[in-house]
Amino acid sequence: MTEPAELAAKVRDGELRLHELEEHADHDVAAAARRLLLEAETDASLDAVGSFTFEAERADPNVENMVGAAQIPLGVAGPVRVDGGAAEGEYYLPLATTEGALIASVNRGCSVISQAGGATARVLKTGMTRAPVFRVADVGEAAEVLSWVEANEDRLAAAAEATTSHGEVTDVEPYVVGDSVFLRFAFDTKDAMGMNMATIATGNAAELVEAETPASLVALSGNLCTDKKPAAINAVEGRGRTVTADVRIPREVVEERLHTTPEAIAEVNTRKNLVGSAKAGSLGFNAHAANVVAAAFLATGQDAAQVVEGSNAITTVEARERELYASVSLASLEVGTVGGGTKLPTQAESLDVLGVRGGGDPAGTNADALAEIVATGALAGELSLLAALASRHLSSAHEELGR
Amino acid sequence: MTEPAELAAKVRDGELRLHELEEHADHDVAAAARRLLLEAETDASLDAVGSFTFEAERADPNVENMVGAAQIPLGVAGPVRVDGGAAEGEYYLPLATTEGALIASVNRGCSVISQAGGATARVLKTGMTRAPVFRVADVGEAAEVLSWVEANEDRLAAAAEATTSHGEVTDVEPYVVGDSVFLRFAFDTKDAMGMNMATIATGNAAELVEAETPASLVALSGNLCTDKKPAAINAVEGRGRTVTADVRIPREVVEERLHTTPEAIAEVNTRKNLVGSAKAGSLGFNAHAANVVAAAFLATGQDAAQVVEGSNAITTVEARERELYASVSLASLEVGTVGGGTKLPTQAESLDVLGVRGGGDPAGTNADALAEIVATGALAGELSLLAALASRHLSSAHEELGR
Amino acid sequence: MTEPAELAAKVRDGELRLHELEEHADHDVAAAARRLLLEAETDASLDAVGSFTFEAERADPNVENMVGAAQIPLGVAGPVRVDGGAAEGEYYLPLATTEGALIASVNRGCSVISQAGGATARVLKTGMTRAPVFRVADVGEAAEVLSWVEANEDRLAAAAEATTSHGEVTDVEPYVVGDSVFLRFAFDTKDAMGMNMATIATGNAAELVEAETPASLVALSGNLCTDKKPAAINAVEGRGRTVTADVRIPREVVEERLHTTPEAIAEVNTRKNLVGSAKAGSLGFNAHAANVVAAAFLATGQDAAQVVEGSNAITTVEARERELYASVSLASLEVGTVGGGTKLPTQAESLDVLGVRGGGDPAGTNADALAEIVATGALAGELSLLAALASRHLSSAHEELGR
Amino acid sequence: MTEPAELAAKVRDGELRLHELEEHADHDVAAAARRLLLEAETDASLDAVGSFTFEAERADPNVENMVGAAQIPLGVAGPVRVDGGAAEGEYYLPLATTEGALIASVNRGCSVISQAGGATARVLKTGMTRAPVFRVADVGEAAEVLSWVEANEDRLAAAAEATTSHGEVTDVEPYVVGDSVFLRFAFDTKDAMGMNMATIATGNAAELVEAETPASLVALSGNLCTDKKPAAINAVEGRGRTVTADVRIPREVVEERLHTTPEAIAEVNTRKNLVGSAKAGSLGFNAHAANVVAAAFLATGQDAAQVVEGSNAITTVEARERELYASVSLASLEVGTVGGGTKLPTQAESLDVLGVRGGGDPAGTNADALAEIVATGALAGELSLLAALASRHLSSAHEELGR
Repeated sequence: MTEPAELAAKVRDGELRLHELEEHADHDVAAAARRLLLEAETDASLDAVGSFTFEAERADPNVENMVGAAQIPLGVAGPVRVDGGAAEGEYYLPLATTEGALIASVNRGCSVISQAGGATARVLKTGMTRAPVFRVADVGEAAEVLSWVEANEDRLAAAAEATTSHGEVTDVEPYVVGDSVFLRFAFDTKDAMGMNMATIATGNAAELVEAETPASLVALSGNLCTDKKPAAINAVEGRGRTVTADVRIPREVVEERLHTTPEAIAEVNTRKNLVGSAKAGSLGFNAHAANVVAAAFLATGQDAAQVVEGSNAITTVEARERELYASVSLASLEVGTVGGGTKLPTQAESLDVLGVRGGGDPAGTNADALAEIVATGALAGELSLLAALASRHLSSAHEELGR
Repeated sequence: MTEPAELAAKVRDGELRLHELEEHADHDVAAAARRLLLEAETDASLDAVGSFTFEAERADPNVENMVGAAQIPLGVAGPVRVDGGAAEGEYYLPLATTEGALIASVNRGCSVISQAGGATARVLKTGMTRAPVFRVADVGEAAEVLSWVEANEDRLAAAAEATTSHGEVTDVEPYVVGDSVFLRFAFDTKDAMGMNMATIATGNAAELVEAETPASLVALSGNLCTDKKPAAINAVEGRGRTVTADVRIPREVVEERLHTTPEAIAEVNTRKNLVGSAKAGSLGFNAHAANVVAAAFLATGQDAAQVVEGSNAITTVEARERELYASVSLASLEVGTVGGGTKLPTQAESLDVLGVRGGGDPAGTNADALAEIVATGALAGELSLLAALASRHLSSAHEELGR
Repeated sequence: MTEPAELAAKVRDGELRLHELEEHADHDVAAAARRLLLEAETDASLDAVGSFTFEAERADPNVENMVGAAQIPLGVAGPVRVDGGAAEGEYYLPLATTEGALIASVNRGCSVISQAGGATARVLKTGMTRAPVFRVADVGEAAEVLSWVEANEDRLAAAAEATTSHGEVTDVEPYVVGDSVFLRFAFDTKDAMGMNMATIATGNAAELVEAETPASLVALSGNLCTDKKPAAINAVEGRGRTVTADVRIPREVVEERLHTTPEAIAEVNTRKNLVGSAKAGSLGFNAHAANVVAAAFLATGQDAAQVVEGSNAITTVEARERELYASVSLASLEVGTVGGGTKLPTQAESLDVLGVRGGGDPAGTNADALAEIVATGALAGELSLLAALASRHLSSAHEELGR
Repeated sequence: MTEPAELAAKVRDGELRLHELEEHADHDVAAAARRLLLEAETDASLDAVGSFTFEAERADPNVENMVGAAQIPLGVAGPVRVDGGAAEGEYYLPLATTEGALIASVNRGCSVISQAGGATARVLKTGMTRAPVFRVADVGEAAEVLSWVEANEDRLAAAAEATTSHGEVTDVEPYVVGDSVFLRFAFDTKDAMGMNMATIATGNAAELVEAETPASLVALSGNLCTDKKPAAINAVEGRGRTVTADVRIPREVVEERLHTTPEAIAEVNTRKNLVGSAKAGSLGFNAHAANVVAAAFLATGQDAAQVVEGSNAITTVEARERELYASVSLASLEVGTVGGGTKLPTQAESLDVLGVRGGGDPAGTNADALAEIVATGALAGELSLLAALASRHLSSAHEELGR
């Protein structure tokens, strides 16, 4: 049996390359060998990175050149009551973060929401998108391609769906800029976040376009998808789940628990989240939705880079005679409960805490529920931070908790 | 000594609240008690989440209601040569991710960059910002406040700097919308990411504004900062580090290693990253910079929600007679090598791999180097994905690696 | 018969109000009276403003409190050959402007385009939009309203179309933010720009929504239309006509007539129109399309405020071995050949110059042709300015022509 | 003396080109000849276009290939009281438009503002910008160029100011994207809108950059200016004049004159102008500021294409116990009272109506006053339309006035 030291030596001698180790030893030994190598070439010790507690092979679909694992503190907020289209009941939110004060803040919001009877949440639109870009001769040819696409949506859908047992094409939207034609395919990917499914399916449909029209594929993603970039197309039209959570909080709860008034919170929201964001040229009209999205994503095995789209959120607050109304609408929350990082040990456990691991029944309801719960968590975070600002506690809260 | 089960019982009986456990037991016991509680109230087992390998107390500044830790696979790309303003030499990039194929892709890019002699990188601007919003009576009063601010920048800076031993005020920029006045304070926060430092310092300066002018503070953050939201103000003016990395790759290296041509890569970049992003109403003109930013942030203890600003990046590619020129410019990369999550065990080790843990000499150079290395990693990721698209490998690469 | 002086005296004495004069005299006398009043109350003489050469009554649908007319110099560029979906042949472009050098620049572009055999142009999408905003109780109710809308698109369309003999509903797209529901109605308004038609029709459909669902109308325009504001929704999804014009220019024509090379023009376009606009956080990736849009709008009686949406344009340039490819894609060009200002004397004449006055046959083709011609004019302007920049003539051109 | 027919014949025979006529006859004859030519080649008669009432030569700096003039109906709104930094007193607003109902709407708003005691207005920032783009070898060289710029701001300013007797450099802001360096020069151009002045001055400074650094000028405008395109950089940082107007209207005036309540207007503003615009990915958070900007620009000889930047406006409304507070903040209003179209006859008269024609004393105050008056007009338009929407009159108002 090959030992880590032996493997490391072979890499050092040029006999093996760093990414080939799994071909010559099991995954744990390969990772150990890489740690040895890194420790030798840098001043680092990698004891902590190497102290992961699952079999390395289990991460094979998720990582290459594995060395170990990052351990990110995981706490819990809640419980919070959610009256959703798919989620229903009280939930504890597992949140992985390194930002002090965050979970305390979300927790306070959850408590207030629950005291108010819970949040309402709904997924209002679903669609994972992929938009290849094609080259055409000129705009005359572009017009022909568009006509073909319009006349052949069924065939495009069939070609795309031939690659997947679950995904369904829900839309194909064309866009033209000069001699570039973009087709934005949208898919219902059920409980999967669906980026890979959408990519593969779109690839097949793109071949049909190339076969039947003069268009020539330039790139399977033409950035109108838009994946992992801040983009208005996602903020406007949505990507993944478009989900809203809202709550009505009795005035006395606001005063007693949040130590401020509905009017003060509404003023903060208007001047900061609406007017301030407007002046900043922002696509995110919220206080810190990304904090909750990021922490929930890390805990539950979502794609951390998609926190970008998850931050396309608008928070609204109204001071009413007897209550505070607050909502957060996330335009493009990309979540899944199957595939990706959801099978990893700690991530799967976090999904179990929420009761949404694996495929839902009917399909898609687990991911819907996850979206509704994350939206409720974001709402809790918004409420808590807005209230803290309204009572001027932001910097002192950080002083106490955020050292 | 209190046992987890005993603590859990007290919470169940209403004697203690979930966030009070650390007052009655050490941090590890408190976390264990929470796991017991969660396991009892949900169908989850939390063995993996509980298998973290550091003392829970060490995460006290980073998390509340701690339950355990998320373990995120960590791999390595590189080495890659960086000729930076602060970074200099060959670096292995620790990347924590659950997205299959990502590290392989970055690794390929690193290899090509190194073969081309390395990347050049420079931090071109530095400034962590915080922008409180004040209420004034009307625009007449707003004009007075602006005059006062202009005349008293020194006093504002002194007030802000009184709260910090490291930070320096570099700018105070006023913005007015109706009866809301925003002051965007910028700080050189040296090796700290600096959000807390900037918040506390701005709080002190805001008190001076309130004391000396008719302006009344509404919120210490008025969203012109802009923290954790996609916003043009960051993409245009920068936040944290504004950093560019670029490389010139000989034509034969492109052809042999990337199996495509400079012209094909340039075409993909133009149609996808420039024209496609333009059509998408995007602030991110890149392929997947957020992937590298996110993975590097998770590995090195940065704030995962700030991946949002990290995605404000523009990638450019030029096909030249003998070479390919490629660059990635990250407008608002918020990184630190002290504070926040950087002290946690696995995170500190990753910073050690890069040789940038703790304060730099001179101050700020470690965070500068980290920014330059992350930018180089992003450049590697861009090159690799653009080349893959140019040779139409995207979906098949995912098919192989991304199950 | 009432004289201007008499009317003016009555206003001065408070017997009449400024906007009531047309009730007591013909429109020309009313306008004359207002000039007398203004001359008396200010230091202005209004001889020129009063020297308009049409009957004032003719402008009754276009203006209130009429005083006279602004005279804006009108020149001509062209002829330019257009191979469009609706436009076909050589066109002289009437352009009203006060910016020296503009028409000369467009003219040069037209000449080069014609020498290259003409531009190709296509309207690729049509839809005038209006998006009312409704208030609902919470997101649960929003979900119900969306379900109702989805199930009742036919009734909504019927209600809308009941108010118009020409317009057709082509889409109803819902968007939700908290307790606000927006429905973006799109109409094919044929040869009319169609804003009023769309507003009235949407008003009727909104009444149906209010009658049949719990939603309550807050405003007939909820800014998702988006009319006369720079907005990504228009740049992405289009409004009015989405139209592209492009051209291939032989290399020798570029060199002889534009005194530069395809490569130099392409470089200017990439660094300025693509990369520069990206860095500016822009929705307009062009050099000065708004100049041509504005000048054509003023000449032909379009709504000058809609120059805003007309500037949502992307210009692309490619240097090919034997030619230059250039295109301009205007996402949201709102034009009409009937209604609005198109009936005014000078405006109608300009439409006659283009051969597109009044309703087209089939309906919509005149407005389509106008869109294609304006796009071609914009293309001419882009080519000329990019070429001037490429040969560094911008400031000197202005020095000569722009005093 | 050459007759129009004779000239036209020479063009038809190829002896002369269309733009050369002024070399062979006076400007009026040349324009007449062009009308003959156009009438012969199209089905148009150009009597109205030819009926302009000023000497054609007077438009020589404003137009080429002159044919005549567009006549655009001009009405008046007001008077409205403005308490500005430069404007002071009651103003009638000359507005040129073809959109029925617009002036009536603005007029109603002016009346309400005046009844409330007038609007307050302030220019809070001034700066016409021009941003050339330079090519450098790589980011290392970019960093050197930035260092040089920082060390040589005085020389750059001196070079720029050597070309102008009035303009002053107020800022030079560098931006880098890969191997492109942009320098955004800002100028105080006093009473001139200043685009040409800024362009020429920047050209001279750019020569210095080229002479002293390795940077090579690619284009004198690199689109970070940003001229005539919707761009966040203008919305955030301003261009031309950054100006706000606001007003407090007693509750009873709102109710009696606007037939609605402060609360209803505030709700419309929040759901439409703030939330709706946020969802639309907009840079304009207003109802129809562009309408007033466009109409005032046409009347007073401003550049119609700059209506684009003029639409970067945020409207805020607050319902207070006893009053309505409303404001409109225009980030980038580009106006001048000298140069450009301001010298043309009808345009000069409109400036005289406002008392702001020509250079102010001190320099810049006339353009400041114009900006403040236009902002007040925009405020009037916002108030009126928001109130109309609040009382659901929009479509019926259009039905009555907008046929």
